[in-house]
Amino acid sequence: MKAEIITIGDELLNGQVVDTNSAWIARHLGALHIPVIHMTSISDKRHAIKQALRQAEERADVIIMTGGLGPTRDDVTKVSVADYFGTTLVHNEAVLRHVEAIFRRAGRKNMPAINIGQAEVLANATVLFNDVGTAPGMAIERDGKYFAFLPGVPFEMKFLMENRVLPRLREVYKSDVFIYNTYLLTVGIGESHLAEQIGDIEDALPPYITLAYLPKIGMVRLRFTAGGTDMEALTTLTNRFKEQVVERVKDHVVSVDNRSFEEVLVHTFTRKDVTLSTAESCTGGSISAQITAVPGASGMFQGAAVVYSDQAKMDVLGVLPDTLTQYGAVSEPTVKEMAEGARRVFGTDYAIATSGIAGPGGGTETKPVGTVCIAVSGKSETRTQTFHFKNDRAINIERTVIAGLTMLWNILK
Amino acid sequence: MKAEIITIGDELLNGQVVDTNSAWIARHLGALHIPVIHMTSISDKRHAIKQALRQAEERADVIIMTGGLGPTRDDVTKVSVADYFGTTLVHNEAVLRHVEAIFRRAGRKNMPAINIGQAEVLANATVLFNDVGTAPGMAIERDGKYFAFLPGVPFEMKFLMENRVLPRLREVYKSDVFIYNTYLLTVGIGESHLAEQIGDIEDALPPYITLAYLPKIGMVRLRFTAGGTDMEALTTLTNRFKEQVVERVKDHVVSVDNRSFEEVLVHTFTRKDVTLSTAESCTGGSISAQITAVPGASGMFQGAAVVYSDQAKMDVLGVLPDTLTQYGAVSEPTVKEMAEGARRVFGTDYAIATSGIAGPGGGTETKPVGTVCIAVSGKSETRTQTFHFKNDRAINIERTVIAGLTMLWNILK
Repeated sequence: MKAEIITIGDELLNGQVVDTNSAWIARHLGALHIPVIHMTSISDKRHAIKQALRQAEERADVIIMTGGLGPTRDDVTKVSVADYFGTTLVHNEAVLRHVEAIFRRAGRKNMPAINIGQAEVLANATVLFNDVGTAPGMAIERDGKYFAFLPGVPFEMKFLMENRVLPRLREVYKSDVFIYNTYLLTVGIGESHLAEQIGDIEDALPPYITLAYLPKIGMVRLRFTAGGTDMEALTTLTNRFKEQVVERVKDHVVSVDNRSFEEVLVHTFTRKDVTLSTAESCTGGSISAQITAVPGASGMFQGAAVVYSDQAKMDVLGVLPDTLTQYGAVSEPTVKEMAEGARRVFGTDYAIATSGIAGPGGGTETKPVGTVCIAVSGKSETRTQTFHFKNDRAINIERTVIAGLTMLWNILK
Repeated sequence: MKAEIITIGDELLNGQVVDTNSAWIARHLGALHIPVIHMTSISDKRHAIKQALRQAEERADVIIMTGGLGPTRDDVTKVSVADYFGTTLVHNEAVLRHVEAIFRRAGRKNMPAINIGQAEVLANATVLFNDVGTAPGMAIERDGKYFAFLPGVPFEMKFLMENRVLPRLREVYKSDVFIYNTYLLTVGIGESHLAEQIGDIEDALPPYITLAYLPKIGMVRLRFTAGGTDMEALTTLTNRFKEQVVERVKDHVVSVDNRSFEEVLVHTFTRKDVTLSTAESCTGGSISAQITAVPGASGMFQGAAVVYSDQAKMDVLGVLPDTLTQYGAVSEPTVKEMAEGARRVFGTDYAIATSGIAGPGGGTETKPVGTVCIAVSGKSETRTQTFHFKNDRAINIERTVIAGLTMLWNILK
């Protein structure tokens, strides 16, 4: 049982929009042991849609197509699919009533007439009623293959996958080949150094267990993938190799499951019953935003002070005017006082502080763009470090976030 | 002249990593008027790589492939491509010296031996020297078609595109068909209402100008795309239609170019010489992080107070204990005091404040998950509003950010 995902839209092809739907769908199909073997993004054109369906049907058993189901004229998926299946569109009164109810519930009296077209569905399809939007999904099952047609708006697609498509796939199309994925996350070690350190363990892997390196900024995620029919033996053996890797590079391992670095930190702080605050200049609240994106962060996270101006550094965090004059805003003495100020103001056990020149402007000869100072302060000590990143604004900010979290992780240990 | 993008990696197919490379590449090819007609993500397998190259070569003139060039064993792109072109891999001494220099510059004495393999390149390719990583790119030009093979790590790919691939394409493969894209961004109006209001303008478009609706959370971007050979006439006519749309829905238009909402706000604040701060509870610093991601934000943005706890709301922003007791943290009186407190603490002309229950936990009968209060405070007034979002944590946070920025935009006008 294999799957293929087709996303439709010129906004994908011209790069205006990043396709996040495919990854989400792939993770959820993966959980049913239906591996995705191919993802394609194509234009809102009839011939492209029909060609993609033809090629996908040759390769895969489950085909999920998103996009082009909206009420506007640039949405041609339905007519193209009808053509592919040699069927027609028919008016469905239940869908129309459903769409009208959506508008009423949103407190709007008049449904724009354009939405009447939403009630036109493929004659050979099961309607997937959409409770969170006006475009219904549709599913077709033919010759043992399953096709779903879903809107491209992410939360509508997710609603239909979770409530309509996945339950049906779980019932009928589940694969009996077991795929086991297990992850570990390392920080502070590059991909090739990591590969060198664990080369002998990788050499010993049997052919049905593979190891993949997924480098991201400042971290490398490792994924073991094993495939077979004896679920228990496969899981045990894979975990044994994984434990060898963990043991070998344990100073760098922050997570042995599929959690993100932020999730690990939130859970660790919660378990130890300690609290965190941040004092952010160049990261502008990104550390705080990433920590608080984790459900349950409100127990361990007390707050953040984003202090862009010198005045705010003094007023909010009590940084001394002398420190700013003598060393400048981007300096280890300043971030030390920022971190200690955040611990005092928010009454927390730990704090991270950042100050740097993210770019593109603001660099000087002695402090070029990419110069970043970070402090982490705990109960018994405050550590500071200066970094020299050499990237654009967005990546300099992201590198600072990861470096700050890594310093926090190290002081916690 | 058409392009196709192929991204390689099981981490893409299983959904562990979202492919952001393709959108970036597409935007940059689009700027050279080389439209992308197809994007594919495939597995790190020889047959998948060769099949994708074959299909892409049939459809496109410029083929960009990323991923699978790393030093580890799961990287099989080079051997597969060599096989496709009927060529071999040869050791390139200049590449080896380049890779060694990268390690020296990073301050590491020993280059792991695994990296020697990085110096193996396709015998028929031009090496694209990689200054920011250890995997070189390669380009092959054959029968009027251009193939580039690039690492999958985003900043390495971007370096090679900007410094090696795009200059060559600009020189040789630039198309003489002119494609003109122009955008406008609306907030506070749904896709179908927008379509209804501008239906007659859309009807009048000639066949060579298309209008696309790109809905995102809380906003809709419109894109006019025109194609032809007379650049000036095409641009003038398209802009005339665009101006009609702007005039029709002007209360909702925040941007008439391709800038994001945050960029527009930063530029507007800068032009008016006014300043902003934020006081964030449920958004956890996301508003601040999105504003400060814009280059030049440091002039108009003074700071943010992320106040997750009641104590921090009182200590940092001066919210009155009585207000919290009487109305609760998620209430219009509380966010009003938070916004006014932020203006006072950071000395700014404007402030946004948020407080809400993002979920999944924390909801009550009277204030269920998704209840959010927002205040915007300006020189002469503070406005507050309560929202009832009905999504998961990440989307509730994002909706709050957009609603806050929209309220700010309205008070600015």
